[in-house]
Amino acid sequence: MQIEHGGALDRAMERFGGAVADWIDLSTGINPEVFPLPLIGPEIWNRLPDEKLLVSAFRAAKDYYSMANEAEIVAAPGTQSLIQMMPELVTRGEVAIVGPTYQEHERSFLQAGWMVSNCACIEDIPQSAKIAVIVNPNNPDGRIAAKDDLLDLAKAMDSKGGFLVVDEAFADPHPESSVAEHAGKGGLIILKSFGKFFGLGGLRLGFALSTLDIAQTLKLRLGPWAVSGPALAIAVHAFSDRGRLAAYTERLRFRRALLANVLAEAGLVEIGGTMLFSLVELMQAHRLHEELCRQHVLTRKFGYAPQWLRFGLPLDEIAADILRQRLTKAQGRINS
Amino acid sequence: MQIEHGGALDRAMERFGGAVADWIDLSTGINPEVFPLPLIGPEIWNRLPDEKLLVSAFRAAKDYYSMANEAEIVAAPGTQSLIQMMPELVTRGEVAIVGPTYQEHERSFLQAGWMVSNCACIEDIPQSAKIAVIVNPNNPDGRIAAKDDLLDLAKAMDSKGGFLVVDEAFADPHPESSVAEHAGKGGLIILKSFGKFFGLGGLRLGFALSTLDIAQTLKLRLGPWAVSGPALAIAVHAFSDRGRLAAYTERLRFRRALLANVLAEAGLVEIGGTMLFSLVELMQAHRLHEELCRQHVLTRKFGYAPQWLRFGLPLDEIAADILRQRLTKAQGRINS
Repeated sequence: MQIEHGGALDRAMERFGGAVADWIDLSTGINPEVFPLPLIGPEIWNRLPDEKLLVSAFRAAKDYYSMANEAEIVAAPGTQSLIQMMPELVTRGEVAIVGPTYQEHERSFLQAGWMVSNCACIEDIPQSAKIAVIVNPNNPDGRIAAKDDLLDLAKAMDSKGGFLVVDEAFADPHPESSVAEHAGKGGLIILKSFGKFFGLGGLRLGFALSTLDIAQTLKLRLGPWAVSGPALAIAVHAFSDRGRLAAYTERLRFRRALLANVLAEAGLVEIGGTMLFSLVELMQAHRLHEELCRQHVLTRKFGYAPQWLRFGLPLDEIAADILRQRLTKAQGRINS
Repeated sequence: MQIEHGGALDRAMERFGGAVADWIDLSTGINPEVFPLPLIGPEIWNRLPDEKLLVSAFRAAKDYYSMANEAEIVAAPGTQSLIQMMPELVTRGEVAIVGPTYQEHERSFLQAGWMVSNCACIEDIPQSAKIAVIVNPNNPDGRIAAKDDLLDLAKAMDSKGGFLVVDEAFADPHPESSVAEHAGKGGLIILKSFGKFFGLGGLRLGFALSTLDIAQTLKLRLGPWAVSGPALAIAVHAFSDRGRLAAYTERLRFRRALLANVLAEAGLVEIGGTMLFSLVELMQAHRLHEELCRQHVLTRKFGYAPQWLRFGLPLDEIAADILRQRLTKAQGRINS
């Protein structure tokens, strides 16, 4: 199963030329602004990440995610590594994935020999599924499941000895969508990506919020020092600096409004999205993807939905202006 | 199985008081000098680590480790995560570990349900073992296995459908001990720790050098983006800057000589070690460990060898002087 990931700028450059600086890469859902980094002292680089640092990061994360005290939290080098562990938590069986959605979930279960049922909505999840997976808000369409539905589902999965995975990779700027305050309840695993909202995709940091049992299993699988000291130090800093967080979120909103404007001016119809990306629908989405590549703008197309194109956020007004110009050129070539 | 790890400064501080700045932590084999870091651009923090960065790191690593072109290399968030994958590469059976040595190998195999045979030397490895593990130079005694013996063993393990793991965590400043130039041969997996020699234990970066088959399995298990962008960028920089590397190695030698002097002056007998640590033997090693803790010097003791104490390197002459004074005091308390 070949997955066309965002972040494939290298391959686009090979085919369409240009240097990194020539391109506007809108192919991922990562905030293009790196959250202002703290000074990282030599001891953080030098020493194995110790218990104290981990505890600080967990305390800050619990507060930031509004978790209950009794909920457990596990840190991993990116949510991806947690996604790959989900199939190992119960004996092999059937997993229901509500989609279309982020494809690494399916790949992970297939690789582990599970049977995958792709479901269009929660109601379609078969009784036979041991695990259910919902990305919330969903990627790429931004669909948000009702909290009560998620909690009911988690309870139902728990009563079968299974669980529900809620992947909240894009939930940070949509706190109202999150079920993190319910973490710790049976049958519920919540995955949190640090890199997307905080613009730190290169850092590799993700969290699982869960019951004690599941957390212990995940920690054992991850082993000691799974996450880097700099990642933990940066997380403590980012989670705790509420003033800076508010300003950073404000800039994200502005960026999202810039994108919405550019798309509207180009006559593109947003059919979904989150604060971190927009999904547009048009007849010739793949053609537009290619013409935008020729203009050195990388967007995200979908093999399973040839009418969809996902746009990540331009960094600032300059990037938005360039995007506007290039989008016009690309559309001109299609219409000529 | 509770393993007393190096780096347990937090626990020592809880028991013996003092702030971090009051302590000299010699409990790990990590070079206390962080290798001079390059500027890490925002794009390295922001973007998912891409193929190009990975390829640059692999190229630099292959050159630095003197690997053959046909050998494969896999990057992981620390050697620890690779150690935990070793039991999964062949069906469960018996593993022979030449020891006493770094205990995470045994723990990893026990956790995966393997039978562990602890062997005193290569000759003692039973025919029934599917996997053999040798840390070379060994931790904590610094013993170095002959290259031919290692290569013969790898060949023998291969012919049984198994393999030999050579953990070269401390081999960087002992390149003559390394079998990395033979990586790619059947039955041989070499583990390389980036953090120890380069003083970057917090970074979490390790490599496995192996055949194509094994590399593919490890890569699949690790999944995409297992290693952070900053870690890869720092590795490219550190591996490639030969002038800085030579000066850095020179400072390491100086540091090691400082430690040897302090130990000799204190009448402690070095029975082994590497460029990154020294192992001394004395009747009251645990007592000295405790008295040193009271002086806020953390060393490494061993439950299985109560006569051993391992000393990591003091950063500089100032640290060496403080160590000298505190060692004298600690010995005075024992002898009084």
